[in-house]
Amino acid sequence: MTARSDGRAVDELRPVSIQPHFTEMPAASVLVRFGRTTVMCTASVDERVPRWMDRPGNTRGWVTGEYSMLPGATSPRFRREVSRGGLSGRTQEIQRLIGRSLRAVTDLEKLGPRTVYLDCDVLQADGGTRTASITGAYVALALACDTLLEEGVIAALPLTDSVAAISCGMLEGRALLDLPYVEDAAADVDLNVVMTGSGRLIEVQGTGEEATFTRAELNALLDLAEKGIGELSTLQQEALPDRLHFK
Amino acid sequence: MTARSDGRAVDELRPVSIQPHFTEMPAASVLVRFGRTTVMCTASVDERVPRWMDRPGNTRGWVTGEYSMLPGATSPRFRREVSRGGLSGRTQEIQRLIGRSLRAVTDLEKLGPRTVYLDCDVLQADGGTRTASITGAYVALALACDTLLEEGVIAALPLTDSVAAISCGMLEGRALLDLPYVEDAAADVDLNVVMTGSGRLIEVQGTGEEATFTRAELNALLDLAEKGIGELSTLQQEALPDRLHFK
Amino acid sequence: MTARSDGRAVDELRPVSIQPHFTEMPAASVLVRFGRTTVMCTASVDERVPRWMDRPGNTRGWVTGEYSMLPGATSPRFRREVSRGGLSGRTQEIQRLIGRSLRAVTDLEKLGPRTVYLDCDVLQADGGTRTASITGAYVALALACDTLLEEGVIAALPLTDSVAAISCGMLEGRALLDLPYVEDAAADVDLNVVMTGSGRLIEVQGTGEEATFTRAELNALLDLAEKGIGELSTLQQEALPDRLHFK
Amino acid sequence: MTARSDGRAVDELRPVSIQPHFTEMPAASVLVRFGRTTVMCTASVDERVPRWMDRPGNTRGWVTGEYSMLPGATSPRFRREVSRGGLSGRTQEIQRLIGRSLRAVTDLEKLGPRTVYLDCDVLQADGGTRTASITGAYVALALACDTLLEEGVIAALPLTDSVAAISCGMLEGRALLDLPYVEDAAADVDLNVVMTGSGRLIEVQGTGEEATFTRAELNALLDLAEKGIGELSTLQQEALPDRLHFK
Amino acid sequence: MTARSDGRAVDELRPVSIQPHFTEMPAASVLVRFGRTTVMCTASVDERVPRWMDRPGNTRGWVTGEYSMLPGATSPRFRREVSRGGLSGRTQEIQRLIGRSLRAVTDLEKLGPRTVYLDCDVLQADGGTRTASITGAYVALALACDTLLEEGVIAALPLTDSVAAISCGMLEGRALLDLPYVEDAAADVDLNVVMTGSGRLIEVQGTGEEATFTRAELNALLDLAEKGIGELSTLQQEALPDRLHFK
Amino acid sequence: MTARSDGRAVDELRPVSIQPHFTEMPAASVLVRFGRTTVMCTASVDERVPRWMDRPGNTRGWVTGEYSMLPGATSPRFRREVSRGGLSGRTQEIQRLIGRSLRAVTDLEKLGPRTVYLDCDVLQADGGTRTASITGAYVALALACDTLLEEGVIAALPLTDSVAAISCGMLEGRALLDLPYVEDAAADVDLNVVMTGSGRLIEVQGTGEEATFTRAELNALLDLAEKGIGELSTLQQEALPDRLHFK
Repeated sequence: MTARSDGRAVDELRPVSIQPHFTEMPAASVLVRFGRTTVMCTASVDERVPRWMDRPGNTRGWVTGEYSMLPGATSPRFRREVSRGGLSGRTQEIQRLIGRSLRAVTDLEKLGPRTVYLDCDVLQADGGTRTASITGAYVALALACDTLLEEGVIAALPLTDSVAAISCGMLEGRALLDLPYVEDAAADVDLNVVMTGSGRLIEVQGTGEEATFTRAELNALLDLAEKGIGELSTLQQEALPDRLHFK
Repeated sequence: MTARSDGRAVDELRPVSIQPHFTEMPAASVLVRFGRTTVMCTASVDERVPRWMDRPGNTRGWVTGEYSMLPGATSPRFRREVSRGGLSGRTQEIQRLIGRSLRAVTDLEKLGPRTVYLDCDVLQADGGTRTASITGAYVALALACDTLLEEGVIAALPLTDSVAAISCGMLEGRALLDLPYVEDAAADVDLNVVMTGSGRLIEVQGTGEEATFTRAELNALLDLAEKGIGELSTLQQEALPDRLHFK
Repeated sequence: MTARSDGRAVDELRPVSIQPHFTEMPAASVLVRFGRTTVMCTASVDERVPRWMDRPGNTRGWVTGEYSMLPGATSPRFRREVSRGGLSGRTQEIQRLIGRSLRAVTDLEKLGPRTVYLDCDVLQADGGTRTASITGAYVALALACDTLLEEGVIAALPLTDSVAAISCGMLEGRALLDLPYVEDAAADVDLNVVMTGSGRLIEVQGTGEEATFTRAELNALLDLAEKGIGELSTLQQEALPDRLHFK
Repeated sequence: MTARSDGRAVDELRPVSIQPHFTEMPAASVLVRFGRTTVMCTASVDERVPRWMDRPGNTRGWVTGEYSMLPGATSPRFRREVSRGGLSGRTQEIQRLIGRSLRAVTDLEKLGPRTVYLDCDVLQADGGTRTASITGAYVALALACDTLLEEGVIAALPLTDSVAAISCGMLEGRALLDLPYVEDAAADVDLNVVMTGSGRLIEVQGTGEEATFTRAELNALLDLAEKGIGELSTLQQEALPDRLHFK
Repeated sequence: MTARSDGRAVDELRPVSIQPHFTEMPAASVLVRFGRTTVMCTASVDERVPRWMDRPGNTRGWVTGEYSMLPGATSPRFRREVSRGGLSGRTQEIQRLIGRSLRAVTDLEKLGPRTVYLDCDVLQADGGTRTASITGAYVALALACDTLLEEGVIAALPLTDSVAAISCGMLEGRALLDLPYVEDAAADVDLNVVMTGSGRLIEVQGTGEEATFTRAELNALLDLAEKGIGELSTLQQEALPDRLHFK
Repeated sequence: MTARSDGRAVDELRPVSIQPHFTEMPAASVLVRFGRTTVMCTASVDERVPRWMDRPGNTRGWVTGEYSMLPGATSPRFRREVSRGGLSGRTQEIQRLIGRSLRAVTDLEKLGPRTVYLDCDVLQADGGTRTASITGAYVALALACDTLLEEGVIAALPLTDSVAAISCGMLEGRALLDLPYVEDAAADVDLNVVMTGSGRLIEVQGTGEEATFTRAELNALLDLAEKGIGELSTLQQEALPDRLHFK
């Protein structure tokens, strides 16, 4: 059996780093790396809610995600979506996924009538950009909430759990964790999993790429994802102050 | 334990009908109903391939899906996406899902250098429009391929299996099959499954709607989906001539 | 003198059917057929008026039309306008025509400050889609008004007359009524007429297609249209309850 | 019976002027005035045909119109359509009308594989901008064809007749010719007629503005239009050299 | 040393004409010509301010510019920007420049909470369209302010100085004033200068066109521009009534 | 006289850092900082030329710039331009400036028929983003050309000089170098200068912000800019290998 492209074990994450306070302007800024994949995740707070929420008596807030690839993130260059006349279906899918994932651990009532934007801008793309985005965005969200709490804008931390995400896939009959681009492009089945720190599922997206798969294969991939997300949760805790840890 | 909104058992499909030859203009036209949800699925053949495929020496074809809601499909009226300046993220996600699902059972080499468009236009929406679309689109695709074969345009049926889809969800702690709108809107967890007639998975999309779920719940939902898709596969066979059945 | 493509007399309509209550979601839903041309006309009521009308003291309502072809309505497939970046000039002309035609028989004061949307979605196109749309949309509008009246939302029926429309044209020197696509494409002159049930004109659009015509020819075509619209008015009455008939 | 707003007889045109050679850049440039309505009509020749015509063996040309209002043409200011995100339905209708009207008198075979653009830019708008545009555009087209002939680009004049257009309408029970804005806004019925110099109809567009009309009223308006177009044809001839006159 | 394309001295303006009251609809309308370059500049007053200014207590106004080329302004024809899907970068740069230039001499407080739109529509383009636009727009602005003053809408003239603009450039080692298209296209360095009637700079835009230049060359060009703008200021005064002159 | 906001001398640059090889995917990647302003400049090579250049026999290349602000670059958050429906005028002006500035030092013939994209993505914005972008983009361009040379794609370095840029402005009567946001927003006059390493001007853009300025003030600002660009050129050399230095 051949080794993986980068020599990792089938259930091994790429080297992951989570660097908080990468820039100073937004409420929180995190640089996250899964191997060469590099995403700048920033959290910005807007003291308004989206139009559809903005009704008299509303007391809830909103958390939303935006995702974008910088042109130099890939080779060949990635053409900006603004030049193509709008967001691709893929980008919109990822944005919706980021938003849903973070909202699943946010108490929107405690957040109060404001919006937290989680902007995930991919500086370098080598597979797993959506899962790195969610993993980094959680850290940015936690730090931004911490600041709101410290400033007295909110009265209690509006988070109920942490959240992280990982991809895995079936390649030549093997279930592999955390696929870089070269493996992702060759995989028959692709599974993205979003999970809380306490091990509950938020999102399971399994896709046969012009292929099909069995329940057994799905289970093998879910096992891998669970292991990887456990490790990511630990790394998120290490990047955050104690007061933001969930037991 | 309270009954479902429409009195069905938890593992019971809504009344399903699949009516081929609904209109005469396209290569194939199917009207599919899952309860009140009504979708017109047409297959149109274009003797060209998409631009990105159109290279010298290309011998493969393409299958793609488009999805749209008619304004009168819902109450209140659904505003046309052309008037909003483009397709919503939701529409694009569904279109991509339809295309991937049908391509998973198509031998693009046997289809040859042409494109089959599967247009799924929702005449009435009451939950499960994407799964009804995939289920009906497969029948339209099979009929269109049959015509191409009959006309001698292609030499062999380019299908490897049938495909159908169903939604299920967790509502008040119960796993339910085939949710109408009223249940879908209240569900905590939503699972869409696309499967072949022979029981292999193509797509699994489980989402916690501001909620989370366990592996056990995921498995219960997958069991329900498997049962429902088995029944849909039988109904698809009944709507198609014998020569288009997979054993 | 050769017969018409489908054997009809020059002043004979295609088989026309008007099927009310085709779907259940909108205020009213009508399936209309002129031969193979099939249009789903729905009326949806919105308890707001357009922005430009929405001034303090406004007591009037609005009636507007939207028109769209489903991709499978034609062969070859009709590319969706949302994918082309906007409505074509032709579609906008037809939408404006539908709105004007229905407003000509509506008492907007009696309708009160609400909007009725008449959505005409062409399921199958074989010539005369705009005239079938107007003819079916009137029936949907009448049914929707009837419901508003029954529910006590309005105090009196806001209609002053019925309205129907038909196309005719000059082909090889003959004036023909109700052209299917094959005749329409070959015609030198094209006339669309919208008329009330009581025989008054609402709209006359005569166009030489890279050709010209005389006053005498215009008059011959208007005579044909008058006859056809008389017959359509009778069919509309048959599809509507007595209380919605104009003597 | 009250006089018209500007004291004209019911069948009298506003003062009309047609000034050829208004600018030097395009193939032909004409400034046309119907009262205060002022339109710059330019003809530009492009030695290509539209994409849909551009097939091997094509020998025909194309004539097309574009129409635009300058912001200062009206008071209050007319907001540019580029700022609104696209052409309004009204603008597209007028553009299509201009193109059809000019093509009706053009021999596209004799024009050869090139496109003549007729740009009608309204410098000042006071009713009748579409009819002034067609009337001026014809003069620009004739002059541009004359130049092509003189330069030897084409072998024969590709025109079969002249074309002019006028509006008329029913206002307080009277049929009036050539409505300025103040009359147009108050009219119950609006008729735009496009006719050749030899008196044949090209386009008849009669519209009840939330009103209806009779065959007798239509005929009265057509009589007025015929008279007005006869006078416009004479003015067009005076603006053109003898060699471009049709007897 | 060869003469200029049109025989002018290096520091000589083209024949300039400034014709006020060109049309009657907008608040003010000016036709300005720099040689063959012809621009219709209109000023329209809107009794609202832009959205971003519209806050409670706001007492200031706004002056903004829009710029557009008519299709017949150039040969070959200039394709409308509305057909290309939006304003080009060049058009937006010019619009911003026009707005800034006019605001530099406007007391927005005295203007009060209203907007003056300066629309510069190029009827014919032969180089220097942006400088002709600014020069003409100032005259339109002054006339519009004069009318507002006369009508008692404002209490004092909200202008602090006049403003005019000219282009110059380095061509074959010579500094030239007021370049027509043929010189502009060949120039190595291009300088646009906007200046007040009293000789103060508002805008200096010097650009090497795939070339570079020295401080000495920049100074020579600025000297030329100063001379030209002095002459334009005199012509502006001649086009305006005495009460609108700045000493 | 009060000190500057950050205590710098009037003619002192902010701390500048230029970090090559920031990411690995594009041909070259540079992270440049002017104080808190942080821009990721990447150079990507596309072996095609723009459409308008792509004619038989073409042997020249193209250099173009794109500029974008990340949402988290500013506080409050900067809304993505793709969500607003297109690039703002400001962004387009900056993109055009970046492209022109880099082309002024590029021998497009030596570059050969390929395009170098210089993407300047602002990670953090605190004034001077366009000048930091140009300064960093030059380093990325030089590194990308070096790689092309090394790989034998091109035969000689296609650069004729280095290029850098700086802003300065008049604030409370003083000429200041390299304005951060707080000074930029308050300045009366703003000057952006692009210059080569050998001291020749490429671009001079001086703007009175609702203010005017004198020739003397312009000269004082140009002197400051010259000093600052001299220092930036030295820093660029330090970031580049010797073989890429111009004496």
